[in-house]
Amino acid sequence: VRTIDWVDGAIELVDQTLLPDECVMLRIADVDELIGAIRRLAVRGAPALGVAGAMGVALAAATTDDPAEAVTRLRGARPTAVNLAWGVDQAAALLPDREAVLKRALEIRDDDIAACRSMGEYGAALVRGLTGGAANVMTVCNSGGLAAVERGTALGVVQTLHEQGALGEALALETRPLLQGARLTAWELARMGAPHRLVVDAAGPFLLARGHADVVLIGADRIAADGDTANKIGSYALALGARRAGVPFVVVAPETTVDMATPTGADIEIEDRGGAEVVSVRGVRLAPEGTGALNPAFDVTPHDLITAIVTDRRVVRLDRGETLASVPLGPRRVNRPV
Amino acid sequence: VRTIDWVDGAIELVDQTLLPDECVMLRIADVDELIGAIRRLAVRGAPALGVAGAMGVALAAATTDDPAEAVTRLRGARPTAVNLAWGVDQAAALLPDREAVLKRALEIRDDDIAACRSMGEYGAALVRGLTGGAANVMTVCNSGGLAAVERGTALGVVQTLHEQGALGEALALETRPLLQGARLTAWELARMGAPHRLVVDAAGPFLLARGHADVVLIGADRIAADGDTANKIGSYALALGARRAGVPFVVVAPETTVDMATPTGADIEIEDRGGAEVVSVRGVRLAPEGTGALNPAFDVTPHDLITAIVTDRRVVRLDRGETLASVPLGPRRVNRPV
Repeated sequence: VRTIDWVDGAIELVDQTLLPDECVMLRIADVDELIGAIRRLAVRGAPALGVAGAMGVALAAATTDDPAEAVTRLRGARPTAVNLAWGVDQAAALLPDREAVLKRALEIRDDDIAACRSMGEYGAALVRGLTGGAANVMTVCNSGGLAAVERGTALGVVQTLHEQGALGEALALETRPLLQGARLTAWELARMGAPHRLVVDAAGPFLLARGHADVVLIGADRIAADGDTANKIGSYALALGARRAGVPFVVVAPETTVDMATPTGADIEIEDRGGAEVVSVRGVRLAPEGTGALNPAFDVTPHDLITAIVTDRRVVRLDRGETLASVPLGPRRVNRPV
Repeated sequence: VRTIDWVDGAIELVDQTLLPDECVMLRIADVDELIGAIRRLAVRGAPALGVAGAMGVALAAATTDDPAEAVTRLRGARPTAVNLAWGVDQAAALLPDREAVLKRALEIRDDDIAACRSMGEYGAALVRGLTGGAANVMTVCNSGGLAAVERGTALGVVQTLHEQGALGEALALETRPLLQGARLTAWELARMGAPHRLVVDAAGPFLLARGHADVVLIGADRIAADGDTANKIGSYALALGARRAGVPFVVVAPETTVDMATPTGADIEIEDRGGAEVVSVRGVRLAPEGTGALNPAFDVTPHDLITAIVTDRRVVRLDRGETLASVPLGPRRVNRPV
């Protein structure tokens, strides 16, 4: 099943707020419904948001005579992930040609499927080279098929390692406040039959210090030109822990997440999602009534803490002095039969 | 109200599993009840566990003819916090003299009250010297009155700073899995009228990088002879974040938490409390049925990441090359009127 697709003139997507309890497909025929679904994270993950953005323009083109206003609101529904704005821009450039807009949206969907397969290949080869055997992997949030269309980015690498018999165990950080690790990543790992355990976010750096993982693999919401990477809150703490423990820290994202127009991590807007998500979980209040909270949804990992950036077209070894500007794009890789 | 006390021949303590929804006093007249209360964290916090340990021996002495077996079980109810074993040993050395045992337990209770007041003074003076103004403080877990008898250790320093008009804001990490920060620390900060906000654990290091706190203050469950400190899981990640951000990282604990018999952090047993606490919160399941979890309740912060250790008798500036062996004990300090 695809996380997001275009079916009979509308978007169909898995409502990720209901997982792991229920796997419900939503049918979305209206841009405002889509914006609501994006804001409440029914659909999330940088690659999936790119597809959603492009398909949202197709919806706007089909349902309104002047889609510009809706397209602008859609583009800003979440500020940190570059793929949403990118997907919107790719499709909106073809307005008012409805057919061309839809064709581009479907291309972006198909392209994500191929890109994730290629990242799996590049990433698994890198991890096998770095660790030299069956790897225990630590990851945060969800960068799996649920963050993309079919296979994922960082969790796509875990999946490829598992298919190659080169995965020891995956340790998934639960990822408060919205628990994408506990709810989504654990669900995906169980479905792929991969050995895994859950840990609280605070335990990640200490478990690295105690040798529980050979590599950290994370996705990305935006990669700045210098390699600084915005990803789910907690990624930076893992990077600090990995550096102290001498464990490789690898970012996995498609080329569309690389934003050469953003010079450094300091230039990336960090979405604060408000305190309500922190003071309760799945409807249960955790703190005294009236408690306020800071809730940065993302953090920025400085490039000096990143071993390598893996995309669908290349591996950039920051630890060897390579940069996004210096390493040319290579070919997409195709999954070998497993 | 005292967190733990001896009233009419039994222990009375606040059931911390019910906070912040209800503040219920438990009356415990039996060692096995006490062991159960310790294991499910109805009473927790290193200083409070020291008092509970000594009072538990008094219960055993009063209710059984041969208390040795119960005393041994009580001593091992939680392995990481040194104070529990210390309190048990202090009282058990006086067996079978029931009166002497109870007298020692009450002394330990009173001593904790004085020690926490003194730590507040030493700690607030240090923080004011380090930060030079109203300090924004970050902390994890609960090291307040609920972890001791009346006032706390690290949160006792926050309280003293607040009383001195020298607290900007306290940022409390929620402290998964059992949410002592969200449930207990936020409750205490609200009661003392101190400005505060809650953050998820994963956000701590990033918020330090972005300048949200001037100092990190944590308690301790055991401090090894070299200064390595076991404390609630997440402390180590904060220490890494503080170091990278150039923010002072200060441990606050009574002398009774210093364990010169344990050479280094590697020698401290880390309690794993089992996966059930991770895969659900307050009765709500967070992960797919059958998901396993690793659950280290504590981590170890190496002494090179610690700026200073504040006790009731001294400040040891590890950042200046001082050690627990080199700095002599000083006098207890008494709160000035506020």
